[in-house]
Amino acid sequence: MHISKENLLETHNRIKPYIHRTPILSSNLINEIAGAQLYFKCENFQKMGAFKMRGALNAVLQLSDEQKKCGVATHSSGNFAQALALAAKMQNIKAYIVMPENAPEVKKKAVKGYGGKIIECEANLEARETTLNKVVEETGATFLHPYNDYQVIQGQGTAAMELIEDYADLDFIIAPVGGGGLLAGTALAARHFSPKTKVIAGEPLGADDAWQSLEKGELIPQTNPKTIADGLLTSLGDKTFPLIQELVEKIIRVEEDEIVSAMRLIWERMKIIVEPSSAVALAAVLKEKDKFKGKKIGIILSGGNVDLGNLPF
Amino acid sequence: MHISKENLLETHNRIKPYIHRTPILSSNLINEIAGAQLYFKCENFQKMGAFKMRGALNAVLQLSDEQKKCGVATHSSGNFAQALALAAKMQNIKAYIVMPENAPEVKKKAVKGYGGKIIECEANLEARETTLNKVVEETGATFLHPYNDYQVIQGQGTAAMELIEDYADLDFIIAPVGGGGLLAGTALAARHFSPKTKVIAGEPLGADDAWQSLEKGELIPQTNPKTIADGLLTSLGDKTFPLIQELVEKIIRVEEDEIVSAMRLIWERMKIIVEPSSAVALAAVLKEKDKFKGKKIGIILSGGNVDLGNLPF
Repeated sequence: MHISKENLLETHNRIKPYIHRTPILSSNLINEIAGAQLYFKCENFQKMGAFKMRGALNAVLQLSDEQKKCGVATHSSGNFAQALALAAKMQNIKAYIVMPENAPEVKKKAVKGYGGKIIECEANLEARETTLNKVVEETGATFLHPYNDYQVIQGQGTAAMELIEDYADLDFIIAPVGGGGLLAGTALAARHFSPKTKVIAGEPLGADDAWQSLEKGELIPQTNPKTIADGLLTSLGDKTFPLIQELVEKIIRVEEDEIVSAMRLIWERMKIIVEPSSAVALAAVLKEKDKFKGKKIGIILSGGNVDLGNLPF
Repeated sequence: MHISKENLLETHNRIKPYIHRTPILSSNLINEIAGAQLYFKCENFQKMGAFKMRGALNAVLQLSDEQKKCGVATHSSGNFAQALALAAKMQNIKAYIVMPENAPEVKKKAVKGYGGKIIECEANLEARETTLNKVVEETGATFLHPYNDYQVIQGQGTAAMELIEDYADLDFIIAPVGGGGLLAGTALAARHFSPKTKVIAGEPLGADDAWQSLEKGELIPQTNPKTIADGLLTSLGDKTFPLIQELVEKIIRVEEDEIVSAMRLIWERMKIIVEPSSAVALAAVLKEKDKFKGKKIGIILSGGNVDLGNLPF
């Protein structure tokens, strides 16, 4: 599938009226620590608190009237569940969200708060897919995958488009990688709007399927992920992997304590709340300081949805 | 002492090159909860993390060359200590900070980080003043009071000046009150630049000397303050009190749990880090919703310096 410059521009125009153009912040002190100039694209300030809003909206806005009547469905226990619920609510259509029965109460509450209908299932992949198929069959809802979907990927790419629009001469853009929707979209945006900007990902060592997949040249699914970065537990998909393979320079893996201390640095110095997954990108820069020395680097802060009652510090 | 419109404009021009023009943020959800339109002036994003930078700079920038040679001194265990240390550092002069020996290590570290020289004393007012006098005598440093000083008051007023410049038709501006420097400066700014805007303060019930002073019509010192809002423990001074008495409409007292839940609301919904003292102003609006219904309200978020290892949630 070829995604063109025009596809991305259309995507941005389509979702622009419904999203925030999030600010880009810098911190002198963090620049000093990194030995580079960092520009943080603050998707933690995006509607519902994460970049996922962009992709969910792009998909929902392209449904036919017929499809809209029956609503949308997905399986997710994370930010995409909330994003799809809110995007659907904004379009006045129904959202069916399949969530494992052991999902945190705070996440279920958030989805319900945005008007999503939760269908619980057992906490395994098979139950999840069976339940989703049943929901789709019974309701006629359109299934939208949280990241392995070209419309979703293009939507996520608009964050980097805005970053490039404001800072034309970035040497690097760094994003975290989980399922790869944000990373693939970011890499597409750089390819089309700033071809000299290299795209790199940060990934937790405890969930390094993307790094492994690039190493082996084939899709290696994530098994038994262990990381505080709860937005990065999933495996790459067959749509995100080839784009990442083609367009991303490298993946930098970071330890758990590096993620927590990068997160704390952002909280303490920038006075903004980001989730652990967001801190993975900064942790990657701090891990390979020599590579980034003196460079201009855009960093996508993916989101700010954390449970304040359960912080790592 | 009459402080004129011109005094305030000169103050703003004096400090402008050295401070951040902090952003003003809004949250649809918090507006819905409050039933009013709230504009948050984010001094948590100010240099060193609080509005105190404004007053400290204004005072430091007006020292004579002779005075600069000997440096500045203050007693404070809070944000003013850090602000004065940083303002002095920016002007390449010495800052002597008298701090009680039981002050939290994190605060001492911050002052040292900005190049301030800490002189420890016993944790009582007498020791504090004796030690400060000794420092001033030995070094020739100029003593700057954290809030009971007209230059400091004018500096603090510039936050409200910027708020009014961006939002001309505010019905109210709400600030927290501790020693009264921010509140007096805010009230002066409103009087001169938006006379129809009423200024109100939020104050913790457990440190309500300003409320009591207004009730009795005389300065009542704070004894034994008990509140999580650690920036608001001090008493009004003989310079701040008359200004507040003349220019502030009322003081709304709030309970500890109201402060914590307002703080949590700001963290969760705006994804920004504010200290408990900042949340007192929002808590005041939520406490008297009927009064503020449908109004346009500027809220000064005073700062964002919190100990992440010791949060109230």
